Amino acid sequence: MFTDEYYMKMALQEAQIALEKDEVPIGCVIVSNNRIIARAHNLTETLNDVTAHAEMQAITSAANFLGGKYLKDCTLYVTLEPCVMCSGALSWSQISKVVIGARDEQRGFINKHLSLHPKTEIITGIMENECSSIVKEFFKSKR
Amino acid sequence: MFTDEYYMKMALQEAQIALEKDEVPIGCVIVSNNRIIARAHNLTETLNDVTAHAEMQAITSAANFLGGKYLKDCTLYVTLEPCVMCSGALSWSQISKVVIGARDEQRGFINKHLSLHPKTEIITGIMENECSSIVKEFFKSKR
Repeated sequence: MFTDEYYMKMALQEAQIALEKDEVPIGCVIVSNNRIIARAHNLTETLNDVTAHAEMQAITSAANFLGGKYLKDCTLYVTLEPCVMCSGALSWSQISKVVIGARDEQRGFINKHLSLHPKTEIITGIMENECSSIVKEFFKSKR
Repeated sequence: MFTDEYYMKMALQEAQIALEKDEVPIGCVIVSNNRIIARAHNLTETLNDVTAHAEMQAITSAANFLGGKYLKDCTLYVTLEPCVMCSGALSWSQISKVVIGARDEQRGFINKHLSLHPKTEIITGIMENECSSIVKEFFKSKR
C-alpha cells in the first residue's frame, strides 16, 4: 500500500486543489514513518507571495509538526521538480528522500547543477505523465 | 542621507536583534521610494524553521505591504550574501536591486553560478567589514 505511487497520488490531489483555485497546479506531501505529516499546494496567487510554493509550506508545516527544523527521517513527494528556492530549502532541511513526479527542465534545480544535502536520496519519474499533464493543461488553458 | 550605507546600517540593526536572540546574525531591509517597507532578521532557531531566513520573511512582508507579489521597484539590503533558497525567492520576486554587505563564498548563490532575475542589479561590499564581523564573531563564540 505505502508505495511511492500511493503518496504521489496524494501529492496530485493537492495539485488538483491548487488547480481549482486557478493556481499553477503543483502539490506535495511529506511522509514520516508511513504517515503524511504535511500536505500543501502552490498558493502564490492566493497569498500574493512568490515564496508560497507547495514545498516551502510543507517544509515549515512538517518542522512544526515534528517540533524540530530538520526533516531527517522524512520523504517529500512533489508533483513537479523543485525550483532553485525550494531545492535550497530542502537542502537546509536535510530531508532524507525527495520523490519527484515530472521534471522541470527549465526552472528545476537539477539542470542548474544544484545538489540537495549529501544524504538526500532523489527519485524522479513517479507518475510522471499525470504530474506533467496537469501543469501542461493548466498553461494551455491560459494561452 | 538615503545612501546604500544608510540602509545597510538598518539591515545591520536587524542582524544585531538576531544576535541578541542567539540566531545567526543576518538582517535585511527592503526599500521602495526611499522608504523601508520591510525589515527582518534570521529566525530559524526561534521558529524551528529552515525557511525563516531574513530575506524570505522580508520578501513576504514587502509583497504584503505592496499588495502584489512582484518587488519591481524595490531594493533589498542584506548583511550577508543570500543562499540558494533566498536567491531563488529573490529571482521569483523580480526585485530591482540587491545590495549585499559581506560575501558568503561557501553558502552564497554567486559561487553556485546562479543568477537573479535578468533585470536585477547586484551590488556587493557595502559595509563589508561590519557585516562580515558580526557573523564571524558569532561563530567564534560558538566554538
